[in-house]
Amino acid sequence: MKLAAYFPIYHKLAPEEQYLLESSVLKRRVAAGTIMHNGADDCVGLFIISSGQLRAYILSDEGKEITLYRLFERDICLFSASCIMSSIQFDITIEAEKDSQLWIIPPDIYKQLMESSAVVAGYTNQIMATRFSEVMWLMEQIMWKSFDKRLAAFLLEESLLEQSNFLRLTHEKIANHLGTAREVVTRMLRYFQSEQMVHLTRGEIEITNRQKLEALGQ
Amino acid sequence: MKLAAYFPIYHKLAPEEQYLLESSVLKRRVAAGTIMHNGADDCVGLFIISSGQLRAYILSDEGKEITLYRLFERDICLFSASCIMSSIQFDITIEAEKDSQLWIIPPDIYKQLMESSAVVAGYTNQIMATRFSEVMWLMEQIMWKSFDKRLAAFLLEESLLEQSNFLRLTHEKIANHLGTAREVVTRMLRYFQSEQMVHLTRGEIEITNRQKLEALGQ
Repeated sequence: MKLAAYFPIYHKLAPEEQYLLESSVLKRRVAAGTIMHNGADDCVGLFIISSGQLRAYILSDEGKEITLYRLFERDICLFSASCIMSSIQFDITIEAEKDSQLWIIPPDIYKQLMESSAVVAGYTNQIMATRFSEVMWLMEQIMWKSFDKRLAAFLLEESLLEQSNFLRLTHEKIANHLGTAREVVTRMLRYFQSEQMVHLTRGEIEITNRQKLEALGQ
Repeated sequence: MKLAAYFPIYHKLAPEEQYLLESSVLKRRVAAGTIMHNGADDCVGLFIISSGQLRAYILSDEGKEITLYRLFERDICLFSASCIMSSIQFDITIEAEKDSQLWIIPPDIYKQLMESSAVVAGYTNQIMATRFSEVMWLMEQIMWKSFDKRLAAFLLEESLLEQSNFLRLTHEKIANHLGTAREVVTRMLRYFQSEQMVHLTRGEIEITNRQKLEALGQ
């Protein structure tokens, strides 16, 4: 696997910029569950994901979570290099949700490229705008979509990611994704079960009526 | 008033870039209440505010609002030029909250500058990161701060902006800022009044115990 194939603007860079990148980039494997970035003071570098799945979330003082977005193969994680921009004034946590492989561009190298190249700076803008759009989407969901719709959409998304109707997810974990309490999730899942949309067994949720769940999730 | 004094990177631009900017920028006065940008399809240009106050908010299908942030003198509004970046995939509305004066940089001119100058692209990154940080702050407030705290903080912020203890604000308007229903605001304000923090009269809210309100808003 070559970095050039995963970094979309690689071929727009000058040869010396390509060299700088190639000679400083680190390749890393991480196991599912690894916390890869923790808050704005942490500054590992820019991640380019070659395989696996990362999750970006925020954490309250009381330890409550809400998932902001996920990153997959070919996605780029900018906020793990938040020190490159002083205006990034918020704390995000990034964890590997699955075993993952990635390149890490050290923050000082990326900053140097960004300051000298309009292409890199413009590309960075595009990444940030994409994440911003995902967060705005989430905000609208939280503000204006009832919890049953959010939960239905979440179960369908998980099912797509896992390519399965059987989801190994605790109610606690779902609550952390959606930023609510476990009891709220349990209550709604029981309602979904009473409506024959899902079947609940210990530690597993089976989607039994996808169509009905989709209609609800829209 | 000169653009150079309000556009922080002006002196880092090349003379031909400065000329391009000066020869294309428009100066505009807008009355309070004017909708200046409405959704992602609208693309007026980048605003540089020389005086007044703008409000950025999102709007639900049912017409509910929530204020994302405000812009004041010397602030720059990027999302009024959202067409310059295809990755901006959300709709924001921008209105003049007070009579305002501003410069407008046409979107095609700004895009041209951004594509050729790492300084302009980097500065754009900083603006976006600042707005992103404000939205993340708001998200945390919504997720994890109870409504009484949010309302107390809002009243104090308004009081600071207006330099007055007397706020001319309908409950409807406050509800729109905070993304809730009018009844919720009315109920909480009555509670604040019963706790002697505010005094309510028709169309006006007087802050009567700032200290108590501050303690609550933290």
